[in-house]
Amino acid sequence: MSVTTAVSEDAPLALVCGGGSLPLAVADHVAARGRRVVLFPVRGAAAADDFAKRPHHWLYPGQLGRFSRLARSAGCSDVVFIGWLVRPALWQIRPDLTALMLLPRVAAAFRGGDDHLLTGMARIVEDCGFRLRGAHEVAPEILVPIGALTRRVAVERELADVALGLEYLQATSPFDVGQAVVVADRHVLAAEAAEGTDGMLARVAELRKGGRIRAPRGTGVLVKAPKRGQDRRLDLPSIGPQTVENVVNAGLGGIAVTAGNTITAEPARLVQAADAAGIFVVGVPAAAT
Amino acid sequence: MSVTTAVSEDAPLALVCGGGSLPLAVADHVAARGRRVVLFPVRGAAAADDFAKRPHHWLYPGQLGRFSRLARSAGCSDVVFIGWLVRPALWQIRPDLTALMLLPRVAAAFRGGDDHLLTGMARIVEDCGFRLRGAHEVAPEILVPIGALTRRVAVERELADVALGLEYLQATSPFDVGQAVVVADRHVLAAEAAEGTDGMLARVAELRKGGRIRAPRGTGVLVKAPKRGQDRRLDLPSIGPQTVENVVNAGLGGIAVTAGNTITAEPARLVQAADAAGIFVVGVPAAAT
Repeated sequence: MSVTTAVSEDAPLALVCGGGSLPLAVADHVAARGRRVVLFPVRGAAAADDFAKRPHHWLYPGQLGRFSRLARSAGCSDVVFIGWLVRPALWQIRPDLTALMLLPRVAAAFRGGDDHLLTGMARIVEDCGFRLRGAHEVAPEILVPIGALTRRVAVERELADVALGLEYLQATSPFDVGQAVVVADRHVLAAEAAEGTDGMLARVAELRKGGRIRAPRGTGVLVKAPKRGQDRRLDLPSIGPQTVENVVNAGLGGIAVTAGNTITAEPARLVQAADAAGIFVVGVPAAAT
Repeated sequence: MSVTTAVSEDAPLALVCGGGSLPLAVADHVAARGRRVVLFPVRGAAAADDFAKRPHHWLYPGQLGRFSRLARSAGCSDVVFIGWLVRPALWQIRPDLTALMLLPRVAAAFRGGDDHLLTGMARIVEDCGFRLRGAHEVAPEILVPIGALTRRVAVERELADVALGLEYLQATSPFDVGQAVVVADRHVLAAEAAEGTDGMLARVAELRKGGRIRAPRGTGVLVKAPKRGQDRRLDLPSIGPQTVENVVNAGLGGIAVTAGNTITAEPARLVQAADAAGIFVVGVPAAAT
C-alpha cells in the first residue's frame, strides 16, 4: 500500500448528504470504523433535524468553492455523495465563484440524463483535487449480500418474475432511465423512469386498488438493478425499511436486488420490517440476467 | 377475387365493442362504405348511452355461445374487436356452454401478458368459424398517415426525442408491456406498463406540478409504437382528442406515432384539438427506429 493511499484512508471523509436515512447511517458505519466524518448536508434535500446534533456545514447546490474550502481545511481528500437528490431547477442553484469558473463543465453536466449530471458532478469534484469514493467503498457492510435476507424465500414462480425483471432492466439499461421494475405472474406491471422507485410502487398500489391488477395480493416482485455502465461511486440502487413498506402497500410478495451492488444502510431494520410483513428480500447474482 | 372473399366483404360485420369513442367511429366508417354493422358492446367496458340509439346485443365477457349464435344469425362471418377492454377479473367472466367447452383455450389465454390474452381470444373466435379482421382492414381511413397532421411541425430537437422514444419502445417490445413513452430533452420521463397511456400522461402532469421535470412546459414528446410481433388485428395503438388533452396537461409539445399502424378514428377532431392547443402530431415511418 502506498503512503498516499494510507494517508487518504486515514484522513477524515467528506460526506455530501442528500435526503433520506441513508447518509447518517453511512456516516455511522464509517465512524464505527474509526474514521472521522465531516457532514455536508445539501439544502432542499437533507432534513435539518437529522443534522442538529452533529457538526455539519450546509451547502446550497452549486457552492463548490465553499465545499472545497471547508473540506480541505478539515483535512479531507476523499468525498462521498450519498442520499437522494432531486435534480435541482436552475434557479435553485447558487453557484459561487469556483462553480462559475467551472461553468462550462457544470452546464454540460446539466444537459442529458441523470447519469450525465452525476458523472459531471463527479468530474468537477475531482477537478477540485478531491477523490470521489462510493459509499460502499468506505462502508462495505452496506452492500446487500447474495441469497435470502429474510425468513420467507422466493419460490420458483417468483424467481421467474425476478429473471424477467432483470431482463427488462438490462434491455432498458442503455437509456439512462429508472433502475426498477415490478413484475407479477411474468407480466411487467410498472417500469420506473423519472418518478423514482417510491413513485412507481405508489402507482402499483393505486392500480391494485382500482382492480387493474389480476395477480392476487402477495404476489409480484420489485426488481432493482444498477444500470449498465453506471458509475458505482455515485448511484447504486438502494433499499430500506421504507421500500418494504411501499412494497407491502403495493401488494407485492418480495424484493430482489443484485447482490454486491445494492445498498442497504440499515439491514437489521430492513429485515425486521420484511419479516414482520411476510415478504422476501433476496440478493441475486448480477450476472444471472 | 374469389367468390368467398367477395361474399364475406359484403356480409354484415360483427363489431365487438370495448370502451371509448373508437368503436362507434369505426362503425360509422364501415357503414359509410355501405357495409352493415352488427354491434356487440361488452359489459363493463362499453357505455350504455352510446348504444341506446343503435341496434346492438350486449355481451358479458365469456359469452362465446351467445356471440356466435347472434353473429351467425345476422349473417356475419367477419369479426372486429375494437375499443379498450380492461382485462376482466375471473369472477367478472360469465362463460356460457360454448366457452366452457373451450375452457382449456380460454384458461391458456388468461395466463401471460395482454398480447397472450388477445391472441388467445382471436384463436377462440376463429375456432368458432369466424374470421378475425383488424379495424384498419375494414376502415383503412382510420390509420394515421406519414407526416405532420397539424399546423405545428416537430423541430430537430423534438425529432431527436422521437427517435430516442422509438429506440426505447423497440428495446422493451419483447416484454409484452406498454406501447408508449414520454421523452423530453433526450431524457425518458415515463414508460408505460399496466397503467396505460392516459395513466402515464397523468403521472407526467403530476411530476411537472411537483417541479420534478426540468424541461420547460411545451417541450417533450409522447411516442407510441406497436409492439414487435403484435397481432395488428387486435391491438394497434390509438390516439384521439383525449390523448391531445392529456398531452397538453402533461405540458408536452407533441405526439409522434408510427404511420400506417396507429389508429385515430376521429382525425378531424384530433387535429382541431391539437391545433387549438398548439401541439404537433406527426406520423413517422415505423422503420425509422
